[in-house]
Amino acid sequence: MPRLIKKRSQKAGLPPGTLVHIGDVRVEGAKVTLISYDEAHCQEIEVTAVEECTAFRDKPGVTWINVDGVHQVEVVERIGECFGLHPLVMEDILNTDQRPKMEDLGDYIYIVLKMLDYNEKRDEIVGEQVSLVLGPTFVLSFQEMEGDVFDPIRERIRTGKGRIRAMGPDYLAYTLLDSIIDNYFAILERLGERIELLEERVVTRPTPRTLQTIQTLKREMIFLRKSVWPLREVVASLERGDSPLIKESTRVYLRDVYDHTIQVIDAVETFRDMLSGMLDIYLSSVSNRLNRVMEVLTVIATIFMPLTFLVGVYGMNFQYMPELGWRWAYPAVWLVMLAIAATMLILFRRNRWL
Amino acid sequence: MPRLIKKRSQKAGLPPGTLVHIGDVRVEGAKVTLISYDEAHCQEIEVTAVEECTAFRDKPGVTWINVDGVHQVEVVERIGECFGLHPLVMEDILNTDQRPKMEDLGDYIYIVLKMLDYNEKRDEIVGEQVSLVLGPTFVLSFQEMEGDVFDPIRERIRTGKGRIRAMGPDYLAYTLLDSIIDNYFAILERLGERIELLEERVVTRPTPRTLQTIQTLKREMIFLRKSVWPLREVVASLERGDSPLIKESTRVYLRDVYDHTIQVIDAVETFRDMLSGMLDIYLSSVSNRLNRVMEVLTVIATIFMPLTFLVGVYGMNFQYMPELGWRWAYPAVWLVMLAIAATMLILFRRNRWL
Amino acid sequence: MPRLIKKRSQKAGLPPGTLVHIGDVRVEGAKVTLISYDEAHCQEIEVTAVEECTAFRDKPGVTWINVDGVHQVEVVERIGECFGLHPLVMEDILNTDQRPKMEDLGDYIYIVLKMLDYNEKRDEIVGEQVSLVLGPTFVLSFQEMEGDVFDPIRERIRTGKGRIRAMGPDYLAYTLLDSIIDNYFAILERLGERIELLEERVVTRPTPRTLQTIQTLKREMIFLRKSVWPLREVVASLERGDSPLIKESTRVYLRDVYDHTIQVIDAVETFRDMLSGMLDIYLSSVSNRLNRVMEVLTVIATIFMPLTFLVGVYGMNFQYMPELGWRWAYPAVWLVMLAIAATMLILFRRNRWL
Amino acid sequence: MPRLIKKRSQKAGLPPGTLVHIGDVRVEGAKVTLISYDEAHCQEIEVTAVEECTAFRDKPGVTWINVDGVHQVEVVERIGECFGLHPLVMEDILNTDQRPKMEDLGDYIYIVLKMLDYNEKRDEIVGEQVSLVLGPTFVLSFQEMEGDVFDPIRERIRTGKGRIRAMGPDYLAYTLLDSIIDNYFAILERLGERIELLEERVVTRPTPRTLQTIQTLKREMIFLRKSVWPLREVVASLERGDSPLIKESTRVYLRDVYDHTIQVIDAVETFRDMLSGMLDIYLSSVSNRLNRVMEVLTVIATIFMPLTFLVGVYGMNFQYMPELGWRWAYPAVWLVMLAIAATMLILFRRNRWL
Amino acid sequence: MPRLIKKRSQKAGLPPGTLVHIGDVRVEGAKVTLISYDEAHCQEIEVTAVEECTAFRDKPGVTWINVDGVHQVEVVERIGECFGLHPLVMEDILNTDQRPKMEDLGDYIYIVLKMLDYNEKRDEIVGEQVSLVLGPTFVLSFQEMEGDVFDPIRERIRTGKGRIRAMGPDYLAYTLLDSIIDNYFAILERLGERIELLEERVVTRPTPRTLQTIQTLKREMIFLRKSVWPLREVVASLERGDSPLIKESTRVYLRDVYDHTIQVIDAVETFRDMLSGMLDIYLSSVSNRLNRVMEVLTVIATIFMPLTFLVGVYGMNFQYMPELGWRWAYPAVWLVMLAIAATMLILFRRNRWL
Repeated sequence: MPRLIKKRSQKAGLPPGTLVHIGDVRVEGAKVTLISYDEAHCQEIEVTAVEECTAFRDKPGVTWINVDGVHQVEVVERIGECFGLHPLVMEDILNTDQRPKMEDLGDYIYIVLKMLDYNEKRDEIVGEQVSLVLGPTFVLSFQEMEGDVFDPIRERIRTGKGRIRAMGPDYLAYTLLDSIIDNYFAILERLGERIELLEERVVTRPTPRTLQTIQTLKREMIFLRKSVWPLREVVASLERGDSPLIKESTRVYLRDVYDHTIQVIDAVETFRDMLSGMLDIYLSSVSNRLNRVMEVLTVIATIFMPLTFLVGVYGMNFQYMPELGWRWAYPAVWLVMLAIAATMLILFRRNRWL
Repeated sequence: MPRLIKKRSQKAGLPPGTLVHIGDVRVEGAKVTLISYDEAHCQEIEVTAVEECTAFRDKPGVTWINVDGVHQVEVVERIGECFGLHPLVMEDILNTDQRPKMEDLGDYIYIVLKMLDYNEKRDEIVGEQVSLVLGPTFVLSFQEMEGDVFDPIRERIRTGKGRIRAMGPDYLAYTLLDSIIDNYFAILERLGERIELLEERVVTRPTPRTLQTIQTLKREMIFLRKSVWPLREVVASLERGDSPLIKESTRVYLRDVYDHTIQVIDAVETFRDMLSGMLDIYLSSVSNRLNRVMEVLTVIATIFMPLTFLVGVYGMNFQYMPELGWRWAYPAVWLVMLAIAATMLILFRRNRWL
Repeated sequence: MPRLIKKRSQKAGLPPGTLVHIGDVRVEGAKVTLISYDEAHCQEIEVTAVEECTAFRDKPGVTWINVDGVHQVEVVERIGECFGLHPLVMEDILNTDQRPKMEDLGDYIYIVLKMLDYNEKRDEIVGEQVSLVLGPTFVLSFQEMEGDVFDPIRERIRTGKGRIRAMGPDYLAYTLLDSIIDNYFAILERLGERIELLEERVVTRPTPRTLQTIQTLKREMIFLRKSVWPLREVVASLERGDSPLIKESTRVYLRDVYDHTIQVIDAVETFRDMLSGMLDIYLSSVSNRLNRVMEVLTVIATIFMPLTFLVGVYGMNFQYMPELGWRWAYPAVWLVMLAIAATMLILFRRNRWL
Repeated sequence: MPRLIKKRSQKAGLPPGTLVHIGDVRVEGAKVTLISYDEAHCQEIEVTAVEECTAFRDKPGVTWINVDGVHQVEVVERIGECFGLHPLVMEDILNTDQRPKMEDLGDYIYIVLKMLDYNEKRDEIVGEQVSLVLGPTFVLSFQEMEGDVFDPIRERIRTGKGRIRAMGPDYLAYTLLDSIIDNYFAILERLGERIELLEERVVTRPTPRTLQTIQTLKREMIFLRKSVWPLREVVASLERGDSPLIKESTRVYLRDVYDHTIQVIDAVETFRDMLSGMLDIYLSSVSNRLNRVMEVLTVIATIFMPLTFLVGVYGMNFQYMPELGWRWAYPAVWLVMLAIAATMLILFRRNRWL
Repeated sequence: MPRLIKKRSQKAGLPPGTLVHIGDVRVEGAKVTLISYDEAHCQEIEVTAVEECTAFRDKPGVTWINVDGVHQVEVVERIGECFGLHPLVMEDILNTDQRPKMEDLGDYIYIVLKMLDYNEKRDEIVGEQVSLVLGPTFVLSFQEMEGDVFDPIRERIRTGKGRIRAMGPDYLAYTLLDSIIDNYFAILERLGERIELLEERVVTRPTPRTLQTIQTLKREMIFLRKSVWPLREVVASLERGDSPLIKESTRVYLRDVYDHTIQVIDAVETFRDMLSGMLDIYLSSVSNRLNRVMEVLTVIATIFMPLTFLVGVYGMNFQYMPELGWRWAYPAVWLVMLAIAATMLILFRRNRWL
């Protein structure tokens, strides 16, 4: 899981719009790829000098520029200038600690959200900030590092499968959004499996480690919630907004994305409820265990304390103890002791302590 | 209870509107039945080829097509095409993990909700997704498997009892909705009985199993809540919406359904409150039991420890212990010990430990 | 307290508007009384045949028909037909599981709420559903059984005390509502007394029974809440609604009823908070008791275990134990043991365990 | 603290507007004082016969009539009639169980709220209901008993300090409101001191009494909340309302009062949070104490049980026990026992039990 | 952390608008500095007599007057009079117990909020109230003491770096706001580090001190929340308000501040959730520790009690105990005892108590 709060103190006192990267540097260099397509053609370029992009700015059709590595401030800056982004928007792209939000700046729409991945080795969610800029003929996407969930989309553009080549940049932006949110379900599936496993273990064999796992999952839920709740508003504003950048035909798809977002929120809330329930079970199973331990102790003590007392009595050294000389006293004491033990055991069984 | 999260990962990366079934396959094949009726006639057909439906599309009167088995993607697809459904709607019908919702698409209204059943053998709620499409002359209903709560409605259509034959498709859709929600009360009755039973048991004889039952019921409540809360909005939008597909005379019935939905929500919330209360009782009864165990232990220890000490004293082997030679020393020690034990018992009784 | 969920399953599958009574039958037969009055006259009839009412339907002045025993379906049905009630309204009157609500049906207003009574013998709240129908010249009231809080109103009508005879049916409906809600205060007074009593007992002498009483009261609160919260909206709609059936001069009285409803809600919430607080006290007093028990055990064990060990030492049978032959060894051991015991006691007192 | 629910049952069945006092009678007789002032003059009268007030009703300038002792029904009634109050308003003045509220009745505005005082001797909040009636030329104030926070205002009117003499009755009403709410801060200061004291004690020396104090403070908070939350709405309606009785120049002062009300609410909520936190600390310190007790017991038992067993072994009376005859057996046993005890102590210290 | 409630009682009874300082006096004297700038010039004055400011009041360009030490009532008063502040605004400036708020008074906008600092030595947050007044040509800022987060802004004004010199007073006010809120992130970073540290410790080595730290952090969160939540509304009103004092070009920057405020709120809520989770872990780790202690006790008791009983048996002094004379009885008893101990140990290991 990412750190709770990213270091922003380095930025204190700088004028607004100063471009400084906030967050961990997770990859060397930056990689810029450009795909330009319309219904008939499709062209793909690995950009080495940002200036190459300028030509595509007003080209008809759709141009999608993807940047991996936002810590390369000057790359983001030059692309931003080329496409006329506001300094505050560029600042937001560089600051990887953003809350998901959507801003309609007239000429373009800026969307920022989290792309999640599940690190199987360390069993934890890895988040990466993705910024999308939707303009009249282009979509810019900024990621923290290489590797994303967009490959099937690239494939669809290349092969012309589906309707994507026939649609505008708003449809492309929707597709990117959709694939990010769809990926949340994969994360939830993995978490759901872990929770179901945990649910069994908490009943059959609770250990302090179980508690820790519950707490870790709870923290993951806090993280997920923070990524997902604001998304609801983001997608709703996109769908209901009146920006001419989003065509009417795309809105029905955005409503679909909205439904998915609500489903993700629902699942997160359900998981939270279940984890709270497990904590209750865990705590009460600890109490139950204590009860069982104490019952064992009490049973043992209650049986042996009277017996030990009794044998102590006949270990006394008084000169005048008539029983000591009796012929059958010893076996009789054994009989008495067995009777006491048996009575106790019966009593305990009645109280269901055994 | 159904799984927490249904496998959607198989769908990742596919273009939107790609028809893939999500959920468990619970029945072989798909069964399509068609009922067409107006005030005078009523015709019922078991459809074998979907094309048979086309003829009924614009037929006056009401046509109700019911599909059991939405995993048969091509059946849903062909019916959808025949009645002009949007690809995203068809996708939603196939994805059995939907949150209850209502969408007014102009030509038709799409409603999706859960039909619940109580599996008496396994003592759990079984949910099935039902999609309703209300058009100007038809109602389509899609279910995951055979067996539903609609048989009394079919009977009413056949016999012409009640006003159903005289009314339009909006009334039929209302009747279907109403019978699904009415069935929730039957589920709640069963759960209510279990809760009342549990309430008694938690006081008289709490065991770790009781706790587990409380948790299971809590989970069922989470599931019920997820099915019922969004319904409120669904029914409210139907009632207050301005779709010409729903006639004014039907709205008063929808208000009635709305009231029922609120009642179901109320009952679910009441049950949740009661289950929380039971958890409190359970936990405190565990503590009480511990207290009782510890009191027994303390009573035993407090009585026998001093006595054992005393008999130990006279088990010492000192040469100069005058008491050992006294004539009545042994009975005197017994008297002292009885006195000690009696005093202790009286003290405990005063403290209400016995 | 009434059952959690009333049996509605008998109704499953019946067409809407089918009149079936839901709830317990609490009285034999049905009793219908009619009071017709204006400023000058007042006539009171015990109705035997429902048809007698028809004459009063359009009579000027105010006609109040009260029905005790809604399980007599045909009585409700015939009165309903006489006064032109919608089948769904009649269904609601018969279904005694309604949530408080108000419906403006144009020609008349339908109000349903709970009338509460406190059963002193069984120390519990008894609820009864009351339906009010306010028409242009009449008020109908339907109750589950005889016995209500309306007697002072009847008396006021008969004697012409207050302004009631001079006012229309809306004022009568207000008076009925007001007397039902005023009665809630009597219930709250009784519950308040029980809670204050409990509050003392939970501190001075908590037993498992105390916990059960807390839980019972909590359940009563859940029940009260369910009856009272929706009332707020009911009264607010009456006051702010624009039905011509309610005159402007009556609205100021309805605002008063609204204030009372809010006060009742406030009291219920306060009681709930207090009961939660008591649960905390109860649980912590159980823990405190355990602490005290364990301290006693520890004190006893810590004093006698070392002593028992010591006497055990001199009970050993070694041939070469010089102490055994010493003249003052025995008293010396006693002195040592007393010193140990005294030291322990002082230590415990310092730790405030005694 | 006042009782939870005041006896209202005596009022059941009476027609609305019947004037009956509800609440405790806290003072003998009623005291009516009248202050009439304008910028130039100021006249103060102790009223003996209510009729004296009539003359001041339409007198220019401001007339402030204050009544101490609302249980004197006829006094309230006659003043109410003189100034044209609605019977329901008079009923509200007499009923000292009102929730804070504000009602604009056109000719005058009725405000009811709680004036709080801190009883230093019994360490509890004492509440008294104050009703204010703001008319075009007069302000009426009704209190339950003598003694209030208005003396500085009276002084300011007499001496003409500040702007009060130059302003109208709306400013006077604001001043009264303001002084009541300002007094809440004094109460909060006292409670804050108690809470800070308690916070220290709960950490250093928690006793069952501490818990009780926490609960008492929690109850005071419930009471305060009930008095303060509705005030927010009251003051907001006064400020934003459009009554001509409140001049534009006074509204800025009301906004100030509104800010104070919010501050009071904030403080109450903060106190509630802190008291919840203290309860957590208390409960966990009880658990910690139990742990310490049990550790002591375990240490004692674990050291002495093996030793007692060992001395028991050599107390056995077998004829063939070679150790008994050995020369150094006795000191050897002592050495072994010391070694066991030392080992145990070291182990415990490692586990931090000592 | 500052006191819960500041002493306001000294103000009780004074007329509104009376200027009295509420809060701690934290600095001697008051320091007033004035910076006047436009795009071309920049002048900085340390003001000794407040009258010097008058000249700058209507000077074109921007004048920023900063006052350190609001306890100097007459300084605030004279500046307030010079710039035409309402008496209630001056009162708010002096009362350092304000809730963050924004008031548009037409000629100027008054903003009050908290500037936070982290006292590294005492590991706690220190809050100071800052009041901002934004007029058409001036910005006034009032602080409790010297030392603030504005130095980089002063530097930027002096050097003319960034756009600040070219912008109006609204941009200056924004910059001050922004730097205060940006500083919150530094506080959150420090708290985040402490929480992460604590999270580790609560799992590995929980002590009562840990609990206290959790509670202290919880209190800091309560304090932070109180400072931050109302800010949201403050900034939103500034951004969405229609005051001509704020130019359109500045609003986009205010939206940025708004986003930061939301991020701070998010972080505070996340921290609160995490601290609650830690409390759960702490409490359950205390229970676990008790379980372990009790298991040790039970193991010891269960092994040695039967053995002690057995050796007691052969310590009895009966004349007829055949075993006592047997040749191998003593070693046989040892064997039996070892067998018992071994069996117990195996049983415990199976139950995972060892």
